[in-house]
Amino acid sequence: MRLILFRTVFVFIFTFSLIGQNVPVDRKSFLGFTNEGTAAQKLLESRFDAQLNATEMLAWLKRLSARPHHLGSPYNKQNADFIASQFKSWGYDTKLEEFHVLFPTPKTRIVEMTAPEKFTLRLNEPELKEDATSGQQVEQLPSYNAYSIDGDVTGPLVYVNYGVPTDYEELEKRGIDVKGKIVIARYGGSWRGIKPKVAAERGAIGCLIYSDPRNDGFYQGDVYPKGAWRNEHGVQRGSVMDMPLYPGDPLTKGVGATKDAKRIATKSAPTLTKIPVLPISYSDALPLLRNLDGAVVPESWKGALPVTYHFGGRAPTVRLKLEFNWDVKPIYNVIARLPGADQPDQWIIRGNHRDAWVNGADDPLSGLVAMMQEAKAIGELRKSGWRPKRTIVYASWDAEEQGLIGSTEWAELHADELRRKAVAYINTDSNGRGFLGMGGSHTLEKFINEVGKDVVDPQTKLTVWERARANQIVNGNATQRREATSRGDLRIGALGSGSDYTPFLQHLGIASLNIGFGGEDGGGSYHSIYDSFDHYTRFGDPGLAYGIALAKICGRATLRLANAEVLPFEFTNFADTVSGYANEVIGLADSMREDTKSANQVISNGMLKAVQDPTETFIVPKAKDPVPYLNFAPLQNAIARLNEGAKKYQFSKAASISAARRAELDRILYGSERLLTRSEGLPRRDWFRHQIYAPGFYTGYGVKTLPGIREAIEQRDWKEAREQIEIAARTIERFIEQIDRASEMY
Amino acid sequence: MRLILFRTVFVFIFTFSLIGQNVPVDRKSFLGFTNEGTAAQKLLESRFDAQLNATEMLAWLKRLSARPHHLGSPYNKQNADFIASQFKSWGYDTKLEEFHVLFPTPKTRIVEMTAPEKFTLRLNEPELKEDATSGQQVEQLPSYNAYSIDGDVTGPLVYVNYGVPTDYEELEKRGIDVKGKIVIARYGGSWRGIKPKVAAERGAIGCLIYSDPRNDGFYQGDVYPKGAWRNEHGVQRGSVMDMPLYPGDPLTKGVGATKDAKRIATKSAPTLTKIPVLPISYSDALPLLRNLDGAVVPESWKGALPVTYHFGGRAPTVRLKLEFNWDVKPIYNVIARLPGADQPDQWIIRGNHRDAWVNGADDPLSGLVAMMQEAKAIGELRKSGWRPKRTIVYASWDAEEQGLIGSTEWAELHADELRRKAVAYINTDSNGRGFLGMGGSHTLEKFINEVGKDVVDPQTKLTVWERARANQIVNGNATQRREATSRGDLRIGALGSGSDYTPFLQHLGIASLNIGFGGEDGGGSYHSIYDSFDHYTRFGDPGLAYGIALAKICGRATLRLANAEVLPFEFTNFADTVSGYANEVIGLADSMREDTKSANQVISNGMLKAVQDPTETFIVPKAKDPVPYLNFAPLQNAIARLNEGAKKYQFSKAASISAARRAELDRILYGSERLLTRSEGLPRRDWFRHQIYAPGFYTGYGVKTLPGIREAIEQRDWKEAREQIEIAARTIERFIEQIDRASEMY
Repeated sequence: MRLILFRTVFVFIFTFSLIGQNVPVDRKSFLGFTNEGTAAQKLLESRFDAQLNATEMLAWLKRLSARPHHLGSPYNKQNADFIASQFKSWGYDTKLEEFHVLFPTPKTRIVEMTAPEKFTLRLNEPELKEDATSGQQVEQLPSYNAYSIDGDVTGPLVYVNYGVPTDYEELEKRGIDVKGKIVIARYGGSWRGIKPKVAAERGAIGCLIYSDPRNDGFYQGDVYPKGAWRNEHGVQRGSVMDMPLYPGDPLTKGVGATKDAKRIATKSAPTLTKIPVLPISYSDALPLLRNLDGAVVPESWKGALPVTYHFGGRAPTVRLKLEFNWDVKPIYNVIARLPGADQPDQWIIRGNHRDAWVNGADDPLSGLVAMMQEAKAIGELRKSGWRPKRTIVYASWDAEEQGLIGSTEWAELHADELRRKAVAYINTDSNGRGFLGMGGSHTLEKFINEVGKDVVDPQTKLTVWERARANQIVNGNATQRREATSRGDLRIGALGSGSDYTPFLQHLGIASLNIGFGGEDGGGSYHSIYDSFDHYTRFGDPGLAYGIALAKICGRATLRLANAEVLPFEFTNFADTVSGYANEVIGLADSMREDTKSANQVISNGMLKAVQDPTETFIVPKAKDPVPYLNFAPLQNAIARLNEGAKKYQFSKAASISAARRAELDRILYGSERLLTRSEGLPRRDWFRHQIYAPGFYTGYGVKTLPGIREAIEQRDWKEAREQIEIAARTIERFIEQIDRASEMY
Repeated sequence: MRLILFRTVFVFIFTFSLIGQNVPVDRKSFLGFTNEGTAAQKLLESRFDAQLNATEMLAWLKRLSARPHHLGSPYNKQNADFIASQFKSWGYDTKLEEFHVLFPTPKTRIVEMTAPEKFTLRLNEPELKEDATSGQQVEQLPSYNAYSIDGDVTGPLVYVNYGVPTDYEELEKRGIDVKGKIVIARYGGSWRGIKPKVAAERGAIGCLIYSDPRNDGFYQGDVYPKGAWRNEHGVQRGSVMDMPLYPGDPLTKGVGATKDAKRIATKSAPTLTKIPVLPISYSDALPLLRNLDGAVVPESWKGALPVTYHFGGRAPTVRLKLEFNWDVKPIYNVIARLPGADQPDQWIIRGNHRDAWVNGADDPLSGLVAMMQEAKAIGELRKSGWRPKRTIVYASWDAEEQGLIGSTEWAELHADELRRKAVAYINTDSNGRGFLGMGGSHTLEKFINEVGKDVVDPQTKLTVWERARANQIVNGNATQRREATSRGDLRIGALGSGSDYTPFLQHLGIASLNIGFGGEDGGGSYHSIYDSFDHYTRFGDPGLAYGIALAKICGRATLRLANAEVLPFEFTNFADTVSGYANEVIGLADSMREDTKSANQVISNGMLKAVQDPTETFIVPKAKDPVPYLNFAPLQNAIARLNEGAKKYQFSKAASISAARRAELDRILYGSERLLTRSEGLPRRDWFRHQIYAPGFYTGYGVKTLPGIREAIEQRDWKEAREQIEIAARTIERFIEQIDRASEMY
């Protein structure tokens, strides 16, 4: 899996010209380092850079992607063993950590249109002569959605666009319900698992998800093998477990899925879907869509297939039959440590998953080989005598694709130790040619911006930070451009879900970062058999120049966190960002109030009905309850304190305290993110404990900031909104008390 | 032709509920009438309504659309004779007025792709069994663009999106020029004549225009015969003469094209295209588009065909060969008069064209039969003894489709008399089911709003005005909704071009209105053989209920103008609207200044180049000259006077002056629009004399308000902008002096 970062990253404008800035800026010192420490660190980083070798990465990429390597497959275990042996050879204390997790694989997959015409879907991606690994059919996982339940259902088909709640509001207005029917949704607009979840809530009996060429096929660009984009037979596999409830093994929520762990029965696992669901290609979807009856859909529902898109509801009739092998399979995380010389109990954790849906050259190997190259270079530094002050832990996660399982089980098993020792988690996943994308904890925003300013972009010779900033200024929206004029750092994106940072950040409260390049790497191979070495080296990142850039960024981040004299946390950027979130939720309530008023007005005065075409069905929706004014004062007061307290803490002073007390200061600093969590978790999903960042309950990957407040407002639960305002205020107060303690140490 | 009004009409919100307002509002008196006059007029209008007969309209529609009836065709003459005989039978003083105009028809039409594959385009719309007149191939005009020059050109093809100037800026950035090449543009985004004009300015040697299904084909809805929209073989015929220069016969600019008029040589006619141009269907376009090479186009250039859209530039190679018969043909306007009893030299002119591209049931007959029904009902009133105070002139124009030729030649021939006598011109054209659209002179805005409030919508039983207003409130953009809260009248659209009001309004300065219903009448038959009785009565306005509504609106408008005690001109709405235009042009200069600054900045600091994908061609555009601050004070001062003077003139007082002086007041009132013209016309196009409204030089149908100023700014001609600000200010001052004279009469 991979979070698409590039549309949500914000930026900042510098006052001098870009041109001429093609060498790393020479600042006085790095955040977390004195001037002397900075000089040594710079030397170390230049030695690190000198080790990086794209040719070797390419060889690894070819080897690791040579055969399908999903959860439980022989080649995935072989890759784990290979990676472990490499880490060992680089001097890491390395082991495989094994878990046993629920993993359904298809036994039967049948989809047929039974009326008005007969058509049996092919459900198969063909071999291409231009793609060397595409013919490995015996080892490939068939196209399916993992954690769909078994089922054999027949019913009329309804097109539900992206299948998110607002789409069903549109259907209701058209007098169409999905009870007893099968829905067909297109990929996009939400994480895929949301589609069957919402469909089942509305009474649907089955769900098909197809890749519309508008979203990642010929509408975007030439299709594979001519170009990078999804061809007519490409299918997006993917997990549909209800991850916004909790990720990881469905049978062992909150605890590590060791061999002997206590398990719930498969049938009672709450994160399985409630209805059968299957992904299909657009060549399979086309005959179904062509036969949909009923009214024509609105503009925002239209895809790029050469048909008039209709809602359906009575035709065609479709049968969907799915049966799975409900096995428990072993998975293997590769965990490699380089113990810290000074503070071995302060861990910098660095991870990228290893498993793929099929061959996975892009997802995840493009990120993994960069991480391996980075780890090897750090191993070389170690061999030459250098030792990190703090412990570095590299992790190659298994079973990420099925629901962040490898990382989640590991984080759950080691939760107590991690809460004590983990300083930060740095994640990567797919990587590609293009622009730097940064997401994560805003307490690390200034730190990672600084790192980005020290790495040169392979194509332009600007720094990667300067190119990302230029992109926001040239191609950003008004908000992004405005930020670019008023802020010293690029604003990093908040993390929702979609990769392995989730258990660390949102369950354990460990400050996290997620880093990757992209935007010029095409698309369309995602979770298909065509995510291959051939595809990636033609379109993703030929020559792996951006793999090297990723290793430089994440290697620097890891080395600086490991070596810092005082940990480089900084709180004014966090305060500024959370102030923004507070303004957003206040604005959300205000705009919902106005929108509700206008919408209710045109319902009650008859205008909404009056402007409908009377030859078409239109059901006037019920008026919604008005949005009350909420007391945001507790939140606003907490934010005011946060802004003040954040300014008080200054690294320049912190660096002056004695070495003996620095360990304590470090613990206060990295412990701050823990205070943003709450053991009760979020309403209805106690696994998600972070009160600032969470994946949306109805968006999946998409982040919700101040999620308790925001989702209560979105769900129009005013009582809960009031409670969550209080909870968020108290959370922020506890956080700032901790920062005050840090400020009081010097 | 037809102006699509429904997206540009603005509105106003009423404070009470719509429901219950389903009978015409009982106001004290009509604008232009005393209380007593109003009572009589109401009675007259109810007698008028009682005459209207949809069954008869349907019979006329069937008869008039039974065979192709374009300029010069036998059936068009038969229709003229039939209509003239009807008008005579209704008591009108009726004659045919004949002109002789240049009209090219195709002799040779060949389009072939010669490389990389051979393909000869079919250039033909097939007969459909569901459409009774679609097989009349012998009489149908082939699909072509009139006033294309002859040519036989071969060259590589370039896709230019809509073919407007900004599209060529995009091409330049991609390093693609069209010199020596053939362009293919899609319909939409501008009037069609702009496409070959701009292409020729950039050096192209030929131009194809196709109907992309995104714009009016399957993307919009089911295609004909299943639904209303354009099927794969449908072609949009149409004129490509350079009408923004001058409309009418290309050989007789500014004078009536009588048999003996002085003509220029065909080859020197400036409104012919400079390159050959031909319209094609999307089934003919598809093989060409599929073979375009080069980079993928940006999002806003993408249509709905199932291909990846590319710019082209080297492939494919296309040959376009066109030869025309350059004939001068007779055309016939039917002119029918009902002389005024009191003021025979004050004319209310009411027109709708008669000619079509093929059978033209929608365009223009749907409007024409409504006008005929209206004229017949007025004739019945006349027969029962009533006589209009002023003269009513009905016109059924010929040769509108080729370039507003019938109306333009008539207006030019009778220019002197019209300048003296014409009170107002009311135009209709295509009509269909849906919402009232009103455009025209804002001195008549209050008047036509009042009329709209007195006609009931056939589907909802609200008034047509209330339904149009509800549509703006429910479906309008923010500006439209805002207007709806602050204004007593729906804001009527400004007129650009696209129908027969142009010579009256923009050449002669006669206050004009253009009225029609639509928005629920589908689309896709425009200028094809499928614009037929079968198509129109299934999708356009089954039963012609909106034809009746149109007759009621325009009949009332005609009768009230003809009978008014004082002409119902009103100037505060005009002042308010022109103030808005002034703010727009000032804002335009400001936003261009900011945009130029930002754009130049990212050019000069290298950011624009830095964010490009270096594997693709990108030519950094030259910096543009900065936008100076312009002195808008003369315009602002004139507007301030306008607002004051407009308030001074009040009908309630004007009505009190003696009957003897009313004729003089009327002349002052209807003469006011003349003062908005200038005999020098607009820069580079002296035929267009109106200083407030003009079709855009580079948009065609699309209106430019305060065109002298606006287009100078758009073209970055600051010297001309300064001159035009002065000219507009003086124009407005002369206008308000006239209004002051009216106010001084009581």
